[in-house]
Amino acid sequence: MHEGKTITKRKEKMEKSSYECVKKAYKDVSLQELRDRLAEFAEVRGWKQYHSPRNLLLALVGEVGELSEIFQWRGEVARGLPNWSSDDKEHLEEELSDVLLYLIQLADVCGLDLGQAALAKIVKNARKYPVINQKSS
Amino acid sequence: MHEGKTITKRKEKMEKSSYECVKKAYKDVSLQELRDRLAEFAEVRGWKQYHSPRNLLLALVGEVGELSEIFQWRGEVARGLPNWSSDDKEHLEEELSDVLLYLIQLADVCGLDLGQAALAKIVKNARKYPVINQKSS
Amino acid sequence: MHEGKTITKRKEKMEKSSYECVKKAYKDVSLQELRDRLAEFAEVRGWKQYHSPRNLLLALVGEVGELSEIFQWRGEVARGLPNWSSDDKEHLEEELSDVLLYLIQLADVCGLDLGQAALAKIVKNARKYPVINQKSS
Amino acid sequence: MHEGKTITKRKEKMEKSSYECVKKAYKDVSLQELRDRLAEFAEVRGWKQYHSPRNLLLALVGEVGELSEIFQWRGEVARGLPNWSSDDKEHLEEELSDVLLYLIQLADVCGLDLGQAALAKIVKNARKYPVINQKSS
Repeated sequence: MHEGKTITKRKEKMEKSSYECVKKAYKDVSLQELRDRLAEFAEVRGWKQYHSPRNLLLALVGEVGELSEIFQWRGEVARGLPNWSSDDKEHLEEELSDVLLYLIQLADVCGLDLGQAALAKIVKNARKYPVINQKSS
Repeated sequence: MHEGKTITKRKEKMEKSSYECVKKAYKDVSLQELRDRLAEFAEVRGWKQYHSPRNLLLALVGEVGELSEIFQWRGEVARGLPNWSSDDKEHLEEELSDVLLYLIQLADVCGLDLGQAALAKIVKNARKYPVINQKSS
Repeated sequence: MHEGKTITKRKEKMEKSSYECVKKAYKDVSLQELRDRLAEFAEVRGWKQYHSPRNLLLALVGEVGELSEIFQWRGEVARGLPNWSSDDKEHLEEELSDVLLYLIQLADVCGLDLGQAALAKIVKNARKYPVINQKSS
Repeated sequence: MHEGKTITKRKEKMEKSSYECVKKAYKDVSLQELRDRLAEFAEVRGWKQYHSPRNLLLALVGEVGELSEIFQWRGEVARGLPNWSSDDKEHLEEELSDVLLYLIQLADVCGLDLGQAALAKIVKNARKYPVINQKSS
């Protein structure tokens, strides 16, 4: 392969990588992005004064309560929520989101990086619960 | 600027964009990434059978309880957690993470996209609580 | 004191004791009484079928959420709730009650005696945290 | 029946009533009694200073978390907890008690009468959800 082609390939690769990045950014919502949006949301509304750690924690508990209410009289619920109406699913999405949004804000006002902490916790859990290889023979 | 320079600039821009993407991916943890890691974590350990929606919900409530215990006897806590030991902060990071990890798994077994739901909720909240411009004169 | 008077005294004492009992019963609400009322309440409405342990537990979590919402944006709250409106206090009474009522029902469907369990827990706690006598000599 | 017998009967009735009261007090644990014991418990240990409303609320949330952990990986649980070990039942009794004890203390530091509030809530609920008589003619 001569040099010209190599450069073209490289450029294509870069362009693709760049595109993948944008695509990924579109699909994958990052905790950092949500954090930034929420911080700005509170800032422009003058709500930062109410966002003390324990206020946000109690707001989180409130949302966990609303999340629980969705599941409370249903008995066991199957994965994928078969037979749930789209309204019920949308309601669930909102309550899951509310919990997430307060959790992100709580971490933020505590000065902690929730994303890095979560990655670290998964690593820690992986060590705590090692995979047991089961050979069948 | 002649053509050669333009191409170089473009390449630099692409490289930077590509690099930014990697850097961003390193810094920004996405909900999708955490979801994928958690799904694999449960899969290889044979835990998927226990991950019904209500089991995960109760596990989430359990972690919210542990999170609350960290704050329970402290009275009001200031933003940034001044005077907290690094051990206490690390403990808090772990409990925040545990809540997040169960929340992501709960959304996942329900077949819902938590990241998109969270973005949609922020937009909805922005409409519900419009910013009031305050002119001073 | 002659015999007649003694008998009268005894009778008075008994009557008073009996009255005290009624008064006490009026003032003191027992867990057994609440349990009985709640069991009948659910029975006559055909609700017993929904009262599985985990359904009631999630309903309890829902009410704890509503309780938390009352306190969420207030910062630290002083004992006795000075400056709270009577409406806010009434709302709080209702949410505290809702938590209690689901807790009693949860214990009941689990076949456990909540009152005796609570007394036993206080005794256990007293052993776990002995009182330290502080003499100032 | 002559007068002497009547008086004896009356006395017996009163004695029985008085005895029933004691027996009832033994069996039925009242919220007032638990409240008094807990207030004294905290008093003699110098813990009243930590018992602010929001501290107690977060402690309550912590205990609700521990209660949920008992149920989290079990799938649906049948009434009466068949197949639960006596250790598991005892653990459950303790966690139910912990929730109750913090709830009583929270109501107490707020200056509210939990028992009366609970009775009033049952009456309110009865009005909200009237019993529908179903005649099968």
